[in-house]
Amino acid sequence: MQRLVKPLPLKAVAEFVGGRVIGDEDTPLSGISSIESAAPGDLVFVEDAKNLRAALESRAAAVITAESVAKETASKPLLIAAQPRLAFARAAKLLCPAADRRHGVHPSAIVHSSAVLHENVTVEERVVIGERAEIGENTWIGAGSVIGADAKIGRDCRLYPNLTVYSSVRIGNRVIIHAGAVLGSDGFGYVRDQTTGRHEKSPQIGQLEIEDDVEIGANSTIDRGALDMTRIGRGTKIDNLVHIGHNCQIGEDVIIAAQTGLSGSIVIEKNAVLGGQVGIGEHARIGEGVMLGGQGGVLPNKVLRGKGVAFWGTPAQPVREYLKQLAALARLTKKE
Amino acid sequence: MQRLVKPLPLKAVAEFVGGRVIGDEDTPLSGISSIESAAPGDLVFVEDAKNLRAALESRAAAVITAESVAKETASKPLLIAAQPRLAFARAAKLLCPAADRRHGVHPSAIVHSSAVLHENVTVEERVVIGERAEIGENTWIGAGSVIGADAKIGRDCRLYPNLTVYSSVRIGNRVIIHAGAVLGSDGFGYVRDQTTGRHEKSPQIGQLEIEDDVEIGANSTIDRGALDMTRIGRGTKIDNLVHIGHNCQIGEDVIIAAQTGLSGSIVIEKNAVLGGQVGIGEHARIGEGVMLGGQGGVLPNKVLRGKGVAFWGTPAQPVREYLKQLAALARLTKKE
Amino acid sequence: MQRLVKPLPLKAVAEFVGGRVIGDEDTPLSGISSIESAAPGDLVFVEDAKNLRAALESRAAAVITAESVAKETASKPLLIAAQPRLAFARAAKLLCPAADRRHGVHPSAIVHSSAVLHENVTVEERVVIGERAEIGENTWIGAGSVIGADAKIGRDCRLYPNLTVYSSVRIGNRVIIHAGAVLGSDGFGYVRDQTTGRHEKSPQIGQLEIEDDVEIGANSTIDRGALDMTRIGRGTKIDNLVHIGHNCQIGEDVIIAAQTGLSGSIVIEKNAVLGGQVGIGEHARIGEGVMLGGQGGVLPNKVLRGKGVAFWGTPAQPVREYLKQLAALARLTKKE
Repeated sequence: MQRLVKPLPLKAVAEFVGGRVIGDEDTPLSGISSIESAAPGDLVFVEDAKNLRAALESRAAAVITAESVAKETASKPLLIAAQPRLAFARAAKLLCPAADRRHGVHPSAIVHSSAVLHENVTVEERVVIGERAEIGENTWIGAGSVIGADAKIGRDCRLYPNLTVYSSVRIGNRVIIHAGAVLGSDGFGYVRDQTTGRHEKSPQIGQLEIEDDVEIGANSTIDRGALDMTRIGRGTKIDNLVHIGHNCQIGEDVIIAAQTGLSGSIVIEKNAVLGGQVGIGEHARIGEGVMLGGQGGVLPNKVLRGKGVAFWGTPAQPVREYLKQLAALARLTKKE
Repeated sequence: MQRLVKPLPLKAVAEFVGGRVIGDEDTPLSGISSIESAAPGDLVFVEDAKNLRAALESRAAAVITAESVAKETASKPLLIAAQPRLAFARAAKLLCPAADRRHGVHPSAIVHSSAVLHENVTVEERVVIGERAEIGENTWIGAGSVIGADAKIGRDCRLYPNLTVYSSVRIGNRVIIHAGAVLGSDGFGYVRDQTTGRHEKSPQIGQLEIEDDVEIGANSTIDRGALDMTRIGRGTKIDNLVHIGHNCQIGEDVIIAAQTGLSGSIVIEKNAVLGGQVGIGEHARIGEGVMLGGQGGVLPNKVLRGKGVAFWGTPAQPVREYLKQLAALARLTKKE
Repeated sequence: MQRLVKPLPLKAVAEFVGGRVIGDEDTPLSGISSIESAAPGDLVFVEDAKNLRAALESRAAAVITAESVAKETASKPLLIAAQPRLAFARAAKLLCPAADRRHGVHPSAIVHSSAVLHENVTVEERVVIGERAEIGENTWIGAGSVIGADAKIGRDCRLYPNLTVYSSVRIGNRVIIHAGAVLGSDGFGYVRDQTTGRHEKSPQIGQLEIEDDVEIGANSTIDRGALDMTRIGRGTKIDNLVHIGHNCQIGEDVIIAAQTGLSGSIVIEKNAVLGGQVGIGEHARIGEGVMLGGQGGVLPNKVLRGKGVAFWGTPAQPVREYLKQLAALARLTKKE
């Protein structure tokens, strides 16, 4: 875990995250940690009274918590925040310095002469950047990654090693992409020749657009559109080993957990939450704020709606219905 | 989307795909598109009367459609084909020029002196080609890919960046492999030592053979045989993030959608269609032309048969049986 | 299949694997194989009388088998072992020479000057090894792999091409990692800002430790801890395309088949066996020796216990219960 060489006073953190201090506001902080592994100088966070006690007994220097949990007379300084977990996440940005980076292009990288690199770009070892590609300010591209011709990547992005961006893919600002991800590969589309019975490749010449503030996990794959666009909306977070097929339209602030797979032309509206290993058939639509439990399956063309409504099972049903069915099934065997 | 700099007349396309023209056969075409995003010079296709209307109202230059849908007097030239979708896929080959490629070996690639590269091979930046590997005519290997010793790759193949071909893997002609795929890795086989309880690695020294015209999606993995061969039959199409275990025998023209997993020694006969996230246990056999719905599961040693018969669920059953069970289960809760 | 240029006598193999020979103990052996593809000089193994017959009729030079199966007068020399399959796996180490390797660092590799490489390390083409990383004796790193700063890899490891080890990851001795795997990526953790509705990234600054004798399949991903540690216990074997989330604690000698996914903070106790495509919710615990069938699902916080007890279904139940339910469901439709 990285630590600050030069600690910050608690009040600086409080100001940054927007909270008030109870106790010594000059307490020096040099890192964050869990309660279990807290070391001197660490800031920890708790959301309930039970954990507050453990935090106060730990070696941590200070504790972020909520008004309702805080005690005016605690044995450690407290940082009171409206959303303690969020305040902790933000404090981490101050207290966990990012890894060292070296601005500039490593001599082993191969950047095509027609590519455009904006200021403060970091291009690590053995990166390949193709013709006419454009890399925005402060963006950091990890070793061994390949950026195709005409790709456009925004500013303040972090691309980890050994990932592949196919040609013409457009990526917004502040996007994080983990190692091994593949963006813009061909969709899975074939036409069967009725005469020979063989599959011929359908054209997969569309685009892929990743909007701002998206994060994409390790070894996930997102296909370009067949003729039109695959789009990942602003702020959407995608876990590892997720597959998103051609022409999918993913809204803003969607959560997609690991190993979930979306076949083609699916619409996921904003704020939807998909658990792990979910599978969705082509042309289905998942409405705004819908929650889909792990391993749930949605049939092609199906529409699920309901903000905050949880669905589960295959085919996915409202979770209450599904649990009733599971219970009925269990009773069935009990009777025998 | 790439476009032709020098447009082709509609009649040239009609000749190439095998169809007849109604209307001006000299209409210049420079690209293909969906109806929604058609631009002047684009060829689009429709399979029904409703879409024909939209196509005729679009900015497209010409429309591929079927005899039964076509009107002799349309506002745009029509290309009549027996299989319109197939004709469109073929027209794309004429109208969407492939990306620029540079024949030859990029100076940053490392090709072992004992490797054999046939004519017109393209080896992009930082590719590694091992001892005695052989790369066929016109084959194109994307940046950062690693081709192991003694691997043999046929002609007219397209290998995308950052993929790995283990040693001795054999790949046929016209094979497409997407970024990040891993071909020929060790199978998952261990022997438990009854004395120590520890798992010892079983030998994984067999081969992997990929036949002609196969396409393999991004980040998919196909293991080599343990002692014998894993084989992927001619014309089989494999989507992203698919896993195929050691000793599997996949027939010709099989379709395997994303995230499906095959454990060891499975036989998939020709023309089978596996939906996404299907899981199949070792030594199972999926008969010719069987269709297996998304997330379906097949137990080890199980045999499924029936051309065009659809199976679904875990354990997979004929889809009609399975739907009856789902309906019965739903009724059970209604009664209560 | 690799073969020995200089054959070994059967007695040398018997000595190495701990068995006794019936027949000519000087029989020269130069490889291993399956019965079907046995060639002169090959050692094969059988576990039952039926296969013994086939083995004796094959072209193999000698046969490993158990005391109970062996005939004192066989047409080929026999190697009698207490655990024939295990003996065969061990014999493979003698009879299948490992691929050629070249000790030393290929000139195209980039090894940071502060990295430490112990004796007999092989660093293939275009590998990148970051600041202060340490690579143990005899370890072999495949072409194109990226080893992050401060990573520590033990001795006698085999890392295949194009994989990524994030910074600070610790890997034990004799660990095998296949191509494309990603170790130490950020966990999937966000805090929703109640005011804006947007997801902010939670700190993912913990560690990842892989203990001795672990094998990790192609394109699998293992996340580092959020604040603390993700740990993979000694001897655990992980197949292809597996996902292991942040803070998971995997015990010793666990088996995890392909495409299984573990979300965060899960405990898997030693000797558990997880089938393919299993999904486990956060904070669940799988007890020692539990077996979980393919595609099984375990809810968050759930605890499964029972050495050798098999669970199946979603939510996972003891397999006997689950089979009863499936049978009851089938009967339900029969009655109608």
